[in-house]
Amino acid sequence: MQAIPEAQLLRLEDTREKVNMALEALIQREIDKGSGEVAKLSGEILLSGGKRLRPLLGIFCYEASGGQDIDEIMDLAIAFELIHTATLIHDDINDAAKLRRGIMTLHERIGQPKAIIAGDWLFVQGYGLSGRYTKECIDLIREACANIAVSEFKQLDHVLDLSTSPEDYLQIVRGKTAGPFSAVCESAAIIAGATPEQSKALGRFGMELGIAFQLMDDLLDLRGDERMGKLRGKDIIEGKMTLPLIHALTLLHGKRRQRLSEILNNFSDNLWDELMTLLDTSDSIHYSECLMHTHLERAIQELDSLPETNSKRLLLNIVEKMQTREN
Amino acid sequence: MQAIPEAQLLRLEDTREKVNMALEALIQREIDKGSGEVAKLSGEILLSGGKRLRPLLGIFCYEASGGQDIDEIMDLAIAFELIHTATLIHDDINDAAKLRRGIMTLHERIGQPKAIIAGDWLFVQGYGLSGRYTKECIDLIREACANIAVSEFKQLDHVLDLSTSPEDYLQIVRGKTAGPFSAVCESAAIIAGATPEQSKALGRFGMELGIAFQLMDDLLDLRGDERMGKLRGKDIIEGKMTLPLIHALTLLHGKRRQRLSEILNNFSDNLWDELMTLLDTSDSIHYSECLMHTHLERAIQELDSLPETNSKRLLLNIVEKMQTREN
Repeated sequence: MQAIPEAQLLRLEDTREKVNMALEALIQREIDKGSGEVAKLSGEILLSGGKRLRPLLGIFCYEASGGQDIDEIMDLAIAFELIHTATLIHDDINDAAKLRRGIMTLHERIGQPKAIIAGDWLFVQGYGLSGRYTKECIDLIREACANIAVSEFKQLDHVLDLSTSPEDYLQIVRGKTAGPFSAVCESAAIIAGATPEQSKALGRFGMELGIAFQLMDDLLDLRGDERMGKLRGKDIIEGKMTLPLIHALTLLHGKRRQRLSEILNNFSDNLWDELMTLLDTSDSIHYSECLMHTHLERAIQELDSLPETNSKRLLLNIVEKMQTREN
Repeated sequence: MQAIPEAQLLRLEDTREKVNMALEALIQREIDKGSGEVAKLSGEILLSGGKRLRPLLGIFCYEASGGQDIDEIMDLAIAFELIHTATLIHDDINDAAKLRRGIMTLHERIGQPKAIIAGDWLFVQGYGLSGRYTKECIDLIREACANIAVSEFKQLDHVLDLSTSPEDYLQIVRGKTAGPFSAVCESAAIIAGATPEQSKALGRFGMELGIAFQLMDDLLDLRGDERMGKLRGKDIIEGKMTLPLIHALTLLHGKRRQRLSEILNNFSDNLWDELMTLLDTSDSIHYSECLMHTHLERAIQELDSLPETNSKRLLLNIVEKMQTREN
């Protein structure tokens, strides 16, 4: 991949800033309208950080497909951020998580009842923004949102299920993480007036990128990532079957598999070294990294038919940074 | 009000049946598409009963405004039932309710994490159905849904707040209950091609009816209502400030007010007689009944400009039955 000129990186930061401003404006408008505390508290979570990856993908896919007016795509772009934040709030309740992006989770601060409602409110705001687009786009968003719920159900069923297969895993990831990536990319292309083939290619781009994103997320859970404010081993403690664990459980046998099961069922910090040694034996970290690269390569291929534009280069830049999770 | 001929009552039952069939078809379609357990469990709650009041209002407002094709309005009609059921599931979690419509609540059966997600899923399905309509309708639905959240926040803030005013109360009721009634009526009229004046009149009709509905709900909480599978005094136990209580707290003073506060703060079944005597002293039940009738009369007035059709008579019939909550 080519290095990206400084001017284009500035354009990325500039676009992120526009997204943040649009989100702030929405919250302020709602507060002004008298929505009060629910808008204020939801806004605090929404505006407390986040890479705005979904909105950026939407905007750059729109522009790479020939879209000219950022105002035309901004509502769709931020809709996905609002819906994403809504699911984070509900997930945090269900995971009984204490921290998110390094700050106290909403339900810890204001109690569960209000946190559930705040999630619902953000969801409504996000979904409502989709109303200005065509039925085709709204259906894509609905499909993606419904699949988040379907996949989260499946994920709950697989908590501490040591027989979870890589196929189960990918089905969950496609619904929970990659589906919304795909929906924002495909609907942005449709709004820009792309051909059906081109829109579908960008939908697949989003799906591949989203799978890679989740694979990286799984790896970061094992490595720890202070920057993201995410506790190391959060997934393990919650019994989430991430790909490195599934892979190791598939390959290891006898006493080693037995020991890995015990570790996963009763994890504590003093077991880190032993866990990582077992994952090393089965080469599971490496396997996940390779698979991530496969999906990133596939994502890049889906961009092949796009003309060479600055926005395409920014999409490629997002793919590239995914490998280090700098996005 | 005139008695309604038998044939028209059959039409009401027939329409309710069509609504039920549309809801069943949606759930079945989702199960067939592979949505699995979340569709199955959400469907069970959705199809476990309910008067389908919101869909019926939508359909009859559409027809009374000149709409001819029930298929054109059915998605909107059932969207409101799906959204309503989603809020019931989240409310039940927040209220730690054990029973709904006489059966075990979803979170009691399948645990809170899945119940939160099931609510989200139903919400997505409902909201998604609105996608075939115009932006104007989608905005009305968004506004109504956002206001549910805003009002529920306010309601939580007023739990056991004995200084809650009738104005606070009405603001909560307008957002939480009456707003969705108003939105379904107004958007149905718009879809039927009604004039803006006529659509707004039906929106006001829904608002007035919704306020009356909540006032009746408050009264039923004090009277108990076996048919609805609702426990007598559920609101009191949850600290919800219903209008009869607010009215009594406003009028009573000295020792009586003090005693009422004590009862509300530590309610138990052996205090029923004493509570009802206090409410009787301030004539608070009667006051709520009178106010309910005022709002029902206002609802009827909003229908004045509609031509005399069967659907208008069915709307009037719904208003009439509201007084006995037979709907």
